[in-house]
Amino acid sequence: MKLRVDLLPHGGYSDTVLVVDILRATTTAVAYLERGAEGLLLTASPERALALRDHPGPDGEPVRDERYLLGGERGGLPIPGFDFGNSPVEASGRNFTGRTVVMNTTNGTGAAHVAAQSGKHVLLAALTNAHAAARRARARAVEEIAIVCSGTDERVSLEDAYAAGVLAEYLLAMGDFTVDDGARIALTVRRNLGNPLEALSSSGHGVHLDRLGLGEDVRYAARISESTVVPTLAELQDVEGALRFVAG
Amino acid sequence: MKLRVDLLPHGGYSDTVLVVDILRATTTAVAYLERGAEGLLLTASPERALALRDHPGPDGEPVRDERYLLGGERGGLPIPGFDFGNSPVEASGRNFTGRTVVMNTTNGTGAAHVAAQSGKHVLLAALTNAHAAARRARARAVEEIAIVCSGTDERVSLEDAYAAGVLAEYLLAMGDFTVDDGARIALTVRRNLGNPLEALSSSGHGVHLDRLGLGEDVRYAARISESTVVPTLAELQDVEGALRFVAG
Repeated sequence: MKLRVDLLPHGGYSDTVLVVDILRATTTAVAYLERGAEGLLLTASPERALALRDHPGPDGEPVRDERYLLGGERGGLPIPGFDFGNSPVEASGRNFTGRTVVMNTTNGTGAAHVAAQSGKHVLLAALTNAHAAARRARARAVEEIAIVCSGTDERVSLEDAYAAGVLAEYLLAMGDFTVDDGARIALTVRRNLGNPLEALSSSGHGVHLDRLGLGEDVRYAARISESTVVPTLAELQDVEGALRFVAG
Repeated sequence: MKLRVDLLPHGGYSDTVLVVDILRATTTAVAYLERGAEGLLLTASPERALALRDHPGPDGEPVRDERYLLGGERGGLPIPGFDFGNSPVEASGRNFTGRTVVMNTTNGTGAAHVAAQSGKHVLLAALTNAHAAARRARARAVEEIAIVCSGTDERVSLEDAYAAGVLAEYLLAMGDFTVDDGARIALTVRRNLGNPLEALSSSGHGVHLDRLGLGEDVRYAARISESTVVPTLAELQDVEGALRFVAG
């Protein structure tokens, strides 16, 4: 079995893909499903997310489709018109039973779309569900597991490289893999840059979030394998232009 | 001063850029200039390189401009019509006095073009000239040194990350820098993946070159700071569509 780590999304995935954007999209995605959300819709743009929720009403005023809640960010800040930011702490404090959360974020939702272009099985992985995500990937993969780091604004991010290393360690403990350069770099980062909280807090994006007053989210994202929920791309996509993930 | 490492070319460089493609373009570039080449022209395509050397003659047969020699590769293999592959061992065994070498390679020449779009000072760095390249960059930079790894086929490569770590170590010994995520990853790779030959030989592209019978080139590229030649982008570009580098 091959283990491939892309430190930035590249494409060309033929088998099972773990998409990683731990600060904060994939961590928050796990939290929404943990808290009862029926599904997640990852859209390619904020406009597409708004169009899913709001429809023109008879008097011209938009009518809200109550099934949908919108969560997302740009540069760490909330998107106008959205119901939530992209905070796992906020998500973990609410109940989403029966609702679908529509997500759009700076990096993670784009990486998921790249993965879905060719991947057979696409899963969202964070530190919070790392062990479960690795086990699920191992169970589904036939020839290759690709861990795809979203990065930050098209540059490699330390926190995603670190998380890829954690996932790679779990996978290597489950069987034999041939590893590529990206996997070796991720494992080296994981093994030498301290514990998860040290790595995440010192990353460029971790520092940025802390300055925005979102340090609690960074601490939340640094918890390892507390959840067994693995957001899994549904085979049947019911909404055009959006990827549907359900708890797996 | 800021130290930025891009593990893949990104763009948006405002000051001094060190372009790294140690297996093998930047290592070979240093060797050409070491062996007397007047300059290097890095073209964006093989066709552009061929058009520089060969001009239509009076009888329709191409006439060769003897000032130019063509060196390059695709996937490690020579390009049809070129005079050389992209081998530092081959380059170091010849004399290029008075000649200009026109280079086109899979990854490195593209990265140099990205760097040149906005960089004020663009230098080519390898392990073989690492100390000199770091010193030169430090002397020229005002606010930022960006180390740009070429990678392999748009994916992060271990050998370039390792070389970026070597350059970063030299720079950190020369003064204070704020470092980004990429620099921390590169330094971690440098400090934990063995000596240069171990790192390069075990990289995906190092293994590939060895299989092609080019293991000597990998060993050559692993030598540290033996040359003080730093290929430097000339301020006046005399040939359209090609970047001119001279010994600095």
